[in-house]
Amino acid sequence: MSFISPTKALFQQARVLLLGSGRMGHIRAKAIFANPRFDFAGVVDQNVDGAKQLADVYRTNHFASLTEAIQHNTTPLHGIIISTPTATHAPLISTAAANNISIFTEKPVDETSLQIQEIFNTVRNNNVALCCGFQRRFDPSYVALYDAIKKGAVGTPLTSSIFFGDHPVPSRSFLLQGGGNIISDCSAHDIDYIRWVLNDEVESVYAVGTSSDDELEEAGVIDNATVVMKFLKGAVVTLTLSRGANYGYDQRCEVFGTDGMASVENFAENSTVLSNVSGVHRPKWQHSFPQRFEAAFGYELDAFADTLLLGKPWSVSEEDCVAVQRVCDAALESCERGQVVNLFA
Amino acid sequence: MSFISPTKALFQQARVLLLGSGRMGHIRAKAIFANPRFDFAGVVDQNVDGAKQLADVYRTNHFASLTEAIQHNTTPLHGIIISTPTATHAPLISTAAANNISIFTEKPVDETSLQIQEIFNTVRNNNVALCCGFQRRFDPSYVALYDAIKKGAVGTPLTSSIFFGDHPVPSRSFLLQGGGNIISDCSAHDIDYIRWVLNDEVESVYAVGTSSDDELEEAGVIDNATVVMKFLKGAVVTLTLSRGANYGYDQRCEVFGTDGMASVENFAENSTVLSNVSGVHRPKWQHSFPQRFEAAFGYELDAFADTLLLGKPWSVSEEDCVAVQRVCDAALESCERGQVVNLFA
Amino acid sequence: MSFISPTKALFQQARVLLLGSGRMGHIRAKAIFANPRFDFAGVVDQNVDGAKQLADVYRTNHFASLTEAIQHNTTPLHGIIISTPTATHAPLISTAAANNISIFTEKPVDETSLQIQEIFNTVRNNNVALCCGFQRRFDPSYVALYDAIKKGAVGTPLTSSIFFGDHPVPSRSFLLQGGGNIISDCSAHDIDYIRWVLNDEVESVYAVGTSSDDELEEAGVIDNATVVMKFLKGAVVTLTLSRGANYGYDQRCEVFGTDGMASVENFAENSTVLSNVSGVHRPKWQHSFPQRFEAAFGYELDAFADTLLLGKPWSVSEEDCVAVQRVCDAALESCERGQVVNLFA
Amino acid sequence: MSFISPTKALFQQARVLLLGSGRMGHIRAKAIFANPRFDFAGVVDQNVDGAKQLADVYRTNHFASLTEAIQHNTTPLHGIIISTPTATHAPLISTAAANNISIFTEKPVDETSLQIQEIFNTVRNNNVALCCGFQRRFDPSYVALYDAIKKGAVGTPLTSSIFFGDHPVPSRSFLLQGGGNIISDCSAHDIDYIRWVLNDEVESVYAVGTSSDDELEEAGVIDNATVVMKFLKGAVVTLTLSRGANYGYDQRCEVFGTDGMASVENFAENSTVLSNVSGVHRPKWQHSFPQRFEAAFGYELDAFADTLLLGKPWSVSEEDCVAVQRVCDAALESCERGQVVNLFA
Repeated sequence: MSFISPTKALFQQARVLLLGSGRMGHIRAKAIFANPRFDFAGVVDQNVDGAKQLADVYRTNHFASLTEAIQHNTTPLHGIIISTPTATHAPLISTAAANNISIFTEKPVDETSLQIQEIFNTVRNNNVALCCGFQRRFDPSYVALYDAIKKGAVGTPLTSSIFFGDHPVPSRSFLLQGGGNIISDCSAHDIDYIRWVLNDEVESVYAVGTSSDDELEEAGVIDNATVVMKFLKGAVVTLTLSRGANYGYDQRCEVFGTDGMASVENFAENSTVLSNVSGVHRPKWQHSFPQRFEAAFGYELDAFADTLLLGKPWSVSEEDCVAVQRVCDAALESCERGQVVNLFA
Repeated sequence: MSFISPTKALFQQARVLLLGSGRMGHIRAKAIFANPRFDFAGVVDQNVDGAKQLADVYRTNHFASLTEAIQHNTTPLHGIIISTPTATHAPLISTAAANNISIFTEKPVDETSLQIQEIFNTVRNNNVALCCGFQRRFDPSYVALYDAIKKGAVGTPLTSSIFFGDHPVPSRSFLLQGGGNIISDCSAHDIDYIRWVLNDEVESVYAVGTSSDDELEEAGVIDNATVVMKFLKGAVVTLTLSRGANYGYDQRCEVFGTDGMASVENFAENSTVLSNVSGVHRPKWQHSFPQRFEAAFGYELDAFADTLLLGKPWSVSEEDCVAVQRVCDAALESCERGQVVNLFA
Repeated sequence: MSFISPTKALFQQARVLLLGSGRMGHIRAKAIFANPRFDFAGVVDQNVDGAKQLADVYRTNHFASLTEAIQHNTTPLHGIIISTPTATHAPLISTAAANNISIFTEKPVDETSLQIQEIFNTVRNNNVALCCGFQRRFDPSYVALYDAIKKGAVGTPLTSSIFFGDHPVPSRSFLLQGGGNIISDCSAHDIDYIRWVLNDEVESVYAVGTSSDDELEEAGVIDNATVVMKFLKGAVVTLTLSRGANYGYDQRCEVFGTDGMASVENFAENSTVLSNVSGVHRPKWQHSFPQRFEAAFGYELDAFADTLLLGKPWSVSEEDCVAVQRVCDAALESCERGQVVNLFA
Repeated sequence: MSFISPTKALFQQARVLLLGSGRMGHIRAKAIFANPRFDFAGVVDQNVDGAKQLADVYRTNHFASLTEAIQHNTTPLHGIIISTPTATHAPLISTAAANNISIFTEKPVDETSLQIQEIFNTVRNNNVALCCGFQRRFDPSYVALYDAIKKGAVGTPLTSSIFFGDHPVPSRSFLLQGGGNIISDCSAHDIDYIRWVLNDEVESVYAVGTSSDDELEEAGVIDNATVVMKFLKGAVVTLTLSRGANYGYDQRCEVFGTDGMASVENFAENSTVLSNVSGVHRPKWQHSFPQRFEAAFGYELDAFADTLLLGKPWSVSEEDCVAVQRVCDAALESCERGQVVNLFA
């Protein structure tokens, strides 16, 4: 990724605030700072210590609230980058929109497809962009697979197998408290991606969720799931999800069609190989999403700069955000009822 | 594979007939001939030309019927190897059993789980073995995966993804005439294998079958399918099947568990790599099952020699044969009804 | 490999004797037995027990000497397959030639390039073929690399890196007694192969040999070596040899040229992968040459059947055998003198 | 790479100038800018347009000379990063040292081992660090290989094969004008690295250089070379170099020892795989050194920040710089004379 493109870089900078100083906030802060197209106006978090610590590293200001940050900035702000919990998105988006500030937000935009629809309705009257982050769309490997399918490299897609294995394995207390169903947390990225690749809508969903041991099962924690999505044009997609792949962050996607197969595989932590009496050994896959999607996070924010500075439309539409959430919701329903759920019934 | 084991090889030979001179017959003939533990007594096929051609290559006799072959052989026969169409298995097995000849047969033993049960009932009164061939159980890679799972290499199995892509792609006329559903023809090997690996029974099945183009759809030919099997102990297995993988015979199986993942991958036709301006290129996967399972077919028949000469029990039990067929049948039913089918309802 | 080719297989069988019941004898016996084009007339070894044991397995006769075997066989013999120590080759070849029996022999034909020349001179007056075995020329992967280079897949070859790592690691006593220099034992196959691929002659050789520990060094045992061969047309080839690759039989060859690179890689013992907290693990490479070159050994003897039955010329010429030995000798000389040795000086 | 280490990052920034706005200058500028531990004080280049363009992108100043830049900066400078042609290094280093500014410089420090020695002598009297950049020492894969060898993962190293294939293939005019011998330009990184890994000195060198076609040969351009280095403790290292690997930047290193083999392989441009009728295809390797060593360049400058801010000694010593150059020189001499060159003669 090079920023030495005079047509892009030199005329002006996009002045942005980062909201949230948690795990995603750190990733976003690094990408904002490293991109000379951004003027990093500050970090906002009601957790003032977290905001200050992150702001200090990247030589910027910190604020306790978005309103405070807006008031403090006499130079107009172009955008905010929201990396706060989903439940806080709606008011932040409203405030930004009301101040003519465009928004980039972590997925999902809100907690249900209905609420997502409402937020987009709210924003529509303001002249701002609401950009939801699905970073697979900016990852070189996922983009190359998308391009291959689009130009017909595998003919008509027939089936697709996707594997999402999170790493590092979360702690037991996180699982027991975080509770719930892995489908809610982890399926959206792949559902968005495969809809985009297939350029098609999910017709029906069948999902099975399981708990990896008795304690989790008793606590109602579904930490593994298999989701089968039948698309309108005929492709059948299987998504297998797990909270804990102990061998590294395992994100694979293969699309099989009438003329072949195209797939995205993992990268190893490094490219060494050790061969000895017990076999041929490679390192674990990359540690987690900050490593696997480091380039994608950079490209994603650079695209947000394009939206802010050049008015380029954002790749993920309102319809995409709503449709992805509807499929997640249907998968959860199928998981609970043990039956196939039709989305166009 | 070496046969130089005096404890095994030298005392006696197993005298066997091959029934069928088709594609599987050729594979079996080669393996019988190459194994010095067998005395190859002849090839039986009502297609006399086919029988003669194959018998001539391997320097043995040919016969038009099993009865003729039995009458002609004054030296007692130990076994027959049945590589004829499924519908012909039952009478051949009965005839052999009545003559105290043990039986190796291609899968499935018969066309329905009920008929399979009946054949085993018939044979029970004769002192013969009825050995059904599921060659994955003899393939070094599949055996290594089985061993790994058994000794806990991945902890508790949670999910499994299996891909069966046939190659070469069958002709259109074969597909249109062969018709029907790929699940009937191609799912049994993997269902047997994963039952064996998980040491568990399928509780429910959900299957979706699709046709890869309009002509096949109109002819009712399901040439691609996705089958989700929920096992009693909790593992969820996805089997994706296709009639036509144009990049070689694609047979993969991965088992994901609480402590890691173990998988069987493909072998390439050869181990060359060509790197040039368009990328890094390897050959297609092995051509088809005769290549991929060449060693397995050899080991499988050698195990049959163990059964014939040493009385070793056969690895695939009556219960296995029946249970596999029941899962196939349930998958077909799910495919037709579009709903989950419970096997223990 | 299928033998069901009527044009090849059916008219007649080649009647052959195997000489030697050691490690290579076992490999050759298995390949002779499994190929229906051969009539396996017996195993010859002055070690009568070894000959008998091997002959019993493959249901053939055994003899204490070639002369005895010839006298015993009233049906004429087409060929002998010599798998005895190099020092015994010359008289066996002479005896066979004098009896109009064609010869397949393990490499090298004799111990020096001069002696090799002499044997070919002797045989020339008899109407027999003298076929030296370099099995890489029959291995599907090495053949595919040869074909790729020949059709220009990498343009003009510039450099080549070859690795020969033997497995299993020999015992200390074998090394200390077998003594000498790894170049004598292990370089011929790769030198023959790369001459064939490059269709060129070695102009100069530089070799460095080392001992992997002090005891071997004191005993004068060179168990690792690096050989650089400069070819007349300009390609520079590096051959790295080791007696002991503890991670499996490691035989690789890459050819780099103006338009890309083509290479032969190893095959793993099986195609399983285990991914866990310590990384991604595959088995060792194939155990040793019987496994790695199993198909090649079959094709090689089938080509010998072509020579015996159809008069097809053998791929390895007298000039090849002599030239390979001259390069080996030059490498040994360079290794001792520590200087570059020119073959055309 | 995260900079969120309070012990490292927060106390102060290192104020640095970048010298040179060419290809390496761009890479260094990006890494300086993205690291919050640096205060990027400006870009220096007598090519004022180049300096301005690069400085504008990264929001810093530009200068026509180092002296001008020093005079202009009233806040003291901690370091300079020299990415200018080798011939210009000496005076820049002297000027910086005289002004108590520490130096990071691209390799080689100067054009001959004698001159390198002289520069280090000059600098010794000033209290500054002179840090030569060998980025393999900061690349995660090369570091992992170093660590593996150091902790004995392969036992005693016996042989090593290194491949350096540059990409993209340079233009004909560059080759014809740049002329000379690839050993001068491209061997230093790998020689430094393998000396570091083996913790040993080269005893003798044999090198063969070739031209990939007649025009280059007539122009005296050696664009491919093979270098064999015998180390004092016994390891034999082969380095194969090429100006043009058309399949991507090909940088591999394998170290073979008594207990196994460890190696560094390439990364592909992306992790997609396309399987179709012509085989299994992956993209080219990464484009070139900016991509392959992007992380290493970041870590390398971060280590320079450690030297500037925390006084940490630099990993590459004066002795390393001199020894590497002596091996390069010996390889060039061997290449010209066609004979082995001993470094301790």
